[in-house]
Amino acid sequence: MSPIDLNGACRPIKLLLFDCDGVLTDGGIVLGNGRFELKAFSTRDGMGIALWHRAGLACGVVTARFSEAVARRAQELKFEEVHQSAHDKRATVRAIRDGRGLRREEVAFVGDDLIDLPVRHEAGLFLCPGDAHPTVIAHADHRLQTPGGHGAVREAVDLILSAQNRLDDLIATYLD
Amino acid sequence: MSPIDLNGACRPIKLLLFDCDGVLTDGGIVLGNGRFELKAFSTRDGMGIALWHRAGLACGVVTARFSEAVARRAQELKFEEVHQSAHDKRATVRAIRDGRGLRREEVAFVGDDLIDLPVRHEAGLFLCPGDAHPTVIAHADHRLQTPGGHGAVREAVDLILSAQNRLDDLIATYLD
Amino acid sequence: MSPIDLNGACRPIKLLLFDCDGVLTDGGIVLGNGRFELKAFSTRDGMGIALWHRAGLACGVVTARFSEAVARRAQELKFEEVHQSAHDKRATVRAIRDGRGLRREEVAFVGDDLIDLPVRHEAGLFLCPGDAHPTVIAHADHRLQTPGGHGAVREAVDLILSAQNRLDDLIATYLD
Amino acid sequence: MSPIDLNGACRPIKLLLFDCDGVLTDGGIVLGNGRFELKAFSTRDGMGIALWHRAGLACGVVTARFSEAVARRAQELKFEEVHQSAHDKRATVRAIRDGRGLRREEVAFVGDDLIDLPVRHEAGLFLCPGDAHPTVIAHADHRLQTPGGHGAVREAVDLILSAQNRLDDLIATYLD
Repeated sequence: MSPIDLNGACRPIKLLLFDCDGVLTDGGIVLGNGRFELKAFSTRDGMGIALWHRAGLACGVVTARFSEAVARRAQELKFEEVHQSAHDKRATVRAIRDGRGLRREEVAFVGDDLIDLPVRHEAGLFLCPGDAHPTVIAHADHRLQTPGGHGAVREAVDLILSAQNRLDDLIATYLD
Repeated sequence: MSPIDLNGACRPIKLLLFDCDGVLTDGGIVLGNGRFELKAFSTRDGMGIALWHRAGLACGVVTARFSEAVARRAQELKFEEVHQSAHDKRATVRAIRDGRGLRREEVAFVGDDLIDLPVRHEAGLFLCPGDAHPTVIAHADHRLQTPGGHGAVREAVDLILSAQNRLDDLIATYLD
Repeated sequence: MSPIDLNGACRPIKLLLFDCDGVLTDGGIVLGNGRFELKAFSTRDGMGIALWHRAGLACGVVTARFSEAVARRAQELKFEEVHQSAHDKRATVRAIRDGRGLRREEVAFVGDDLIDLPVRHEAGLFLCPGDAHPTVIAHADHRLQTPGGHGAVREAVDLILSAQNRLDDLIATYLD
Repeated sequence: MSPIDLNGACRPIKLLLFDCDGVLTDGGIVLGNGRFELKAFSTRDGMGIALWHRAGLACGVVTARFSEAVARRAQELKFEEVHQSAHDKRATVRAIRDGRGLRREEVAFVGDDLIDLPVRHEAGLFLCPGDAHPTVIAHADHRLQTPGGHGAVREAVDLILSAQNRLDDLIATYLD
């Protein structure tokens, strides 16, 4: 997608959805004893979600796995949509769109692997982290520079809010 | 191994076996209090195993250590073979071959350190992660680009399924 | 800031404050089951704090989050100031200054994201880790080379103590 | 140290000692709730210690901190010397030498920060990981290429056993 087309695709976005493993995290599935599982999220993404909410926009996670850590992080960052154990991500995103009455052009999705690709049909803007699988990079509308788990969602937020001419005003509140 | 020979070695593979530490993980032995131990696997490898199974092929782990995390990950990804505390990996792989009635040419192994090298005699294709020990790189049939724990097994799956002309069809199901 | 100005800004510093996530850590918010949370600090920063204290100077952490791990690390390294759940960092730093009777020129702060920027008005020297958010890099007095969680605070300590002509004497005690 | 001098310093080594944080690990001090603490060791170092022992040599850890994880890893790898909470590392290494009747020339040490430097007076060969503090790099006899926690001790083992003409025979047992 050319820079002009990308800018145009960012402008109508009202809902930002993302995969968890490989997007909100670096893809590490960290298992311990018993049922113990860890997820390493990024504080940079957390600040991005705060900006997104201050702009009055909604966001959420759509993941095929289930973990308590994702539920906690979603609650902490006040995600409007939290969908774990979502094995058919396209159906899940379509249901979210229907529930919110959003057109395809108003939804952005960030995914990193094959299982995320069908969501392209429900999202006007499909982004991938810098370290996504080569096949996903080839089919994404735009490849972010940041790898998953290190601020890829923040880069998506900065990109979209900037195209919507909202970013500078939000940043200005931290500068005076 | 030349690209042509590598392609030829990939074609008959029916069973993909791999070491755990340094292959399924980045080599981190993560210990906590008491008996607590963590393993960080890759979601990218998980997707690779799912593709491998959809192609009707079998896989499994052969490791000299033991941890609950490996047992959980193996169950989650439905590995057909799970061998922990396997101090003589060559003997273990030979027993697996015998049990499945597989010829040496039908087995691939991914290993990263000296203890894995004897398995070469039981596997027609010996691969190593990009960050394997120099001695292993020197004796492997092919060095993968990806380091252990970040999708090295996925790269092996993509490589073999591509040589078997099965990868494009599998990927296509995510694209329509 | 030019090297000469940076040197001048370092000389009066008596108190070194820093954010936690992205500065003392690499920005990973690591969540497990229940209330479990991990923080990964750097042993290199620990040695830096020891040098800072041997120079007779004070330090501390100002973070918007709360975790037991930060409290433990602060106790272990004997931070003079520990402020968690500090949502208005500028007000917190002003209160610390008032309590210690310090002028703005005597306080340095290390921060990595937008929420840290208002502290610039209370600190004569605002530093950021090498991997800080681009907006923070643009507004910091000086960008450290080291990324957060890998010794960024140590680099700040070395920088300031060197400008104060105290570093060589401290290092010398380890060399004889 | 020139390659010839390095080779000469490696030849008489009978005991290999190393710091923990930043050498056996990447320097991460990983704290959780309550007393919980994690250490991430390297499987590559584990294989190195196995080779070292097969060569009939002794090894051990000297660290100023204390954690259960270090005790477990030391037991798993059968370290001959385990010294935690060793705040005066030079005195500890001298006591180890005295107990084993070893000359300074027979001891090698791997350290990464200022607190390790005084050990140089008790060890004929002082090595540092590739990512050691600049002051330590400047004073070490030799800087390893590998960073701490990713096989720095393995590189030290390979280096010394190679200089002692023992490495090839040990590797050969994995190749036939």
